[in-house]
Amino acid sequence: MSLLCVRVKKAKLHGPPDKFNAYVTLKVQNVKSTTIAVRGDRPCWEQDFMFEINHLDSGLVVELWNKGLIWDTMIGTALIPLDSIQQSDEEGPGQWTPLDSEVLMKEDQICGTTNPTSHRVLLDTRFELPFEIPENEAQYWTRKLERVNGSMSEQSSFSNEMQRRRLPPQCCEFTFFS
Amino acid sequence: MSLLCVRVKKAKLHGPPDKFNAYVTLKVQNVKSTTIAVRGDRPCWEQDFMFEINHLDSGLVVELWNKGLIWDTMIGTALIPLDSIQQSDEEGPGQWTPLDSEVLMKEDQICGTTNPTSHRVLLDTRFELPFEIPENEAQYWTRKLERVNGSMSEQSSFSNEMQRRRLPPQCCEFTFFS
Repeated sequence: MSLLCVRVKKAKLHGPPDKFNAYVTLKVQNVKSTTIAVRGDRPCWEQDFMFEINHLDSGLVVELWNKGLIWDTMIGTALIPLDSIQQSDEEGPGQWTPLDSEVLMKEDQICGTTNPTSHRVLLDTRFELPFEIPENEAQYWTRKLERVNGSMSEQSSFSNEMQRRRLPPQCCEFTFFS
Repeated sequence: MSLLCVRVKKAKLHGPPDKFNAYVTLKVQNVKSTTIAVRGDRPCWEQDFMFEINHLDSGLVVELWNKGLIWDTMIGTALIPLDSIQQSDEEGPGQWTPLDSEVLMKEDQICGTTNPTSHRVLLDTRFELPFEIPENEAQYWTRKLERVNGSMSEQSSFSNEMQRRRLPPQCCEFTFFS
């Protein structure tokens, strides 16, 4: 078990600035996280997310969406294979990832993307913990993550705590685990 | 060109009521709409959405997600083939759709779902306009939809208008076209 840490930093989008109100979704298997929507062709999110990873044979699916009033339209998508992501305990400058407009599938799994767009997103991805950790430590992290993510009462007390500390909401994910 | 109207009514979820804070996403090709998140094992949304459809060879992908603090987890998914949806100018009682846990792909397109869950969602789906409409009328609707969805300034004046009328936000989609 390891923790995949992803910082969604910013994007360079091609088109009229007032056309975009963009947000990013990150998906690993059946788990998804989403940034806030930011206007303009140079949106800056600087939001941190983390995912529990038990095996490396899948990928991180990145999608950029343009938020609309009635519907959202996809700006582009990318697949980052988990086995290409390095371990590191420190944040890095990130990597510019080009976005495609279509996904490629193999045996009901996303195996890549195709049809390049001119849009790019800057992501910092890293595994924070070593892959081989003691079983009891893995269980501790699993329970802690599940408790934070699943419990509604804990969510509201956590939100209150964050409000009390006057921290911006996008800091929640990491602050809680620091 | 036709308008696909979808009313996301409610769901029956199996599990402890305090486990769920569920929302629904509807996807057609590269377009997506999302409901608000509602707590409990019997969430009720009653939200209306519409999509511009130009050909019937794809499907409406329905996903139920459980909103968490750090990440959202998928509750289940279903595919409704567009060519199975009837034309009607009136809302109906909807249909209970069972949810699966996985999608099936064929040539990079979702062609179905598999692995049943015990969760179900009630959806009312219909095409509002006849498929063969005059070209100028189709262009009118396309322009109108694009203008509403794409224009940021129009969004805020629209929001103000809605606020003035004291209508709940989930009524926006249909009210604007009635």
